[in-house]
Amino acid sequence: MTVARQVTTDQLNALTLGASFLGTGGGGDPYIGYLMARQALDARGPVTVVEPEELADDALCVMSAVMGAPTVLVEKLPGGNEQGAALDALARRLGRPVTHIISAEVGGLNSMMPIVAAAMTGLPLVDCDAMGRAFPEIQMSTPTLHGIKATPMAMADDKGNSVVLDAVDNHWTERIARSVAIDMGAAAFIALYPQTGAEVKRAMIPGTLALAERIGNAILEARAVKSDPIEAAVTATGGLRLFDGKIVDVERRTVEGFARGAVTVEGIGDRKGSRLQIQFQNENLIAISDGSVIATVPDLITVIEADTGRPVTTEELRYGHRVAVVGLPCDPQWRTDSGLALVGPRYFGYDIDYRPVESLNRGRS
Amino acid sequence: MTVARQVTTDQLNALTLGASFLGTGGGGDPYIGYLMARQALDARGPVTVVEPEELADDALCVMSAVMGAPTVLVEKLPGGNEQGAALDALARRLGRPVTHIISAEVGGLNSMMPIVAAAMTGLPLVDCDAMGRAFPEIQMSTPTLHGIKATPMAMADDKGNSVVLDAVDNHWTERIARSVAIDMGAAAFIALYPQTGAEVKRAMIPGTLALAERIGNAILEARAVKSDPIEAAVTATGGLRLFDGKIVDVERRTVEGFARGAVTVEGIGDRKGSRLQIQFQNENLIAISDGSVIATVPDLITVIEADTGRPVTTEELRYGHRVAVVGLPCDPQWRTDSGLALVGPRYFGYDIDYRPVESLNRGRS
Repeated sequence: MTVARQVTTDQLNALTLGASFLGTGGGGDPYIGYLMARQALDARGPVTVVEPEELADDALCVMSAVMGAPTVLVEKLPGGNEQGAALDALARRLGRPVTHIISAEVGGLNSMMPIVAAAMTGLPLVDCDAMGRAFPEIQMSTPTLHGIKATPMAMADDKGNSVVLDAVDNHWTERIARSVAIDMGAAAFIALYPQTGAEVKRAMIPGTLALAERIGNAILEARAVKSDPIEAAVTATGGLRLFDGKIVDVERRTVEGFARGAVTVEGIGDRKGSRLQIQFQNENLIAISDGSVIATVPDLITVIEADTGRPVTTEELRYGHRVAVVGLPCDPQWRTDSGLALVGPRYFGYDIDYRPVESLNRGRS
Repeated sequence: MTVARQVTTDQLNALTLGASFLGTGGGGDPYIGYLMARQALDARGPVTVVEPEELADDALCVMSAVMGAPTVLVEKLPGGNEQGAALDALARRLGRPVTHIISAEVGGLNSMMPIVAAAMTGLPLVDCDAMGRAFPEIQMSTPTLHGIKATPMAMADDKGNSVVLDAVDNHWTERIARSVAIDMGAAAFIALYPQTGAEVKRAMIPGTLALAERIGNAILEARAVKSDPIEAAVTATGGLRLFDGKIVDVERRTVEGFARGAVTVEGIGDRKGSRLQIQFQNENLIAISDGSVIATVPDLITVIEADTGRPVTTEELRYGHRVAVVGLPCDPQWRTDSGLALVGPRYFGYDIDYRPVESLNRGRS
């Protein structure tokens, strides 16, 4: 007899660390996510986790997430039942009960919201997500690549307002939902991308919850034995250590509900005399060192605190901090033409072609 | 045996004129409304009209309207089935079929949209509206004064997007729906304020469709016998002829989905040497002559073309036009404390107390 896989409070620390790593600076404050997940698991007990391949083809799987500027969420700890309100509104629209919770993104707060939702509803959580990282917009998902719509989608706020949206495509969903999220106080609780089990098996990226846990455990174990936690994270993921240095400049502004800005890191050690700039829109988008692009979206760019191995969100970037910058190849689906049209550097306004982070750094010392 | 009251194409001309008068400059382009209603009545035949008191207490009555900046609607003639899409989305949310169509406002385009909706759905139209005029925001309705919510509310656009909103109060409905309407191309088709027959009898203003027709017929008859159409309209409504003159300045801008601005009229005849300024936000809000306020919202302020007696929307105001300005007492419900809190001059940003248009002009020559 096998014991069902679960998420318990014991795993939350590792999951939070790993999800922060995969969040590439975005997806909201992981500590708030940790607190919410911890509270939900304490109150309701462990969450059952299933693999996508275990799903019945007619299962009804729904993403539970938060939409908005993480900057604002830090100031506005969610109240409680908003996720349930969004799920209920969507189930009412769909006319049948949700059977499984799925994750929109494996990054930051939004890696924890599905755990909260699963705990509060008693529904099992499927080990998968729609990005293999965090992205700032709704249409940026592997289901979009498979022709699956984000709507019907429900939104709820802390005041008791809710919205159910049916859009013609996932770009329209993003556009309309973004405005509603701004009205709802710059952050809304959302239930979206309803999918059958068959669709989840085809369209979602499997195993990213387990991956997040593996990364987090690697960092925690390195800390415990006082070895380098950044090397541990790089080894656990197959990533590239792109830069080591000290933050010398951070600029940040909230534009149209997004946290935009840039951070500049001055090299130390082998990188002394070099500079690295990372530009972000909620998530880190592009890393430029001494005039050369060394990593771009959709590959993952993660800033990690040098001493602790803790991945740092774009909100937490502070002058003077010692950091390492790690690059990680994205899910292969993002490297296709349709994937790059959706999340490549040109979509984010950069006039450059995507090149894989491995290629950009081949031979770079 | 009595013949059921109907709206046919024969009445549309008078209804359009009367609704333009009661629209106080707002509510969208009445000619577009006329064209849409004409097309719908030609295709589907007359619309049955019932009085509120004829409604069964458990009837399900829903407003059908357009939300957005009339400026944009002029450029964007609606496509066809958007009203049906909004009504269908709302009926699905409510879980039962709509039995009657009601009017949000008796002004301009939105006086015609319920006729279009009634023709297209085959449902009867109830002779009533929620304002007795036109107002720019959703919460500005007599149902709000009676504690009736605008939500569940549905919105649909010409692209196929739809939204169903549940808000905590009618101010939140306005706020969220306004953002969605802007995303939907600055104008959206909406179905809202679902009410039982009992609620309609209590909360809506009865007989405003008949009033609009009476005003329109008075203007048309005056034209036919070459008497003054403005005097005819004033007599038909119990209004006050506030000013006669020539438009010498119009300023207009679209702000947050509203058409805002002001028109200045230079007096002629008895008013020679005087000036009148009207400030508007979709609808005419305040009339100031030579430094004195002579009419304010919620009383009706209507600009009428001198030669034809045709009421002019804020969109149609043009330099050089000869016009008369008429003031009309609003529905008594708006003159209560709660009515004035919702639609009084202070709500629109004017630091003055409301005084009835009759009082303001008593003894004014």
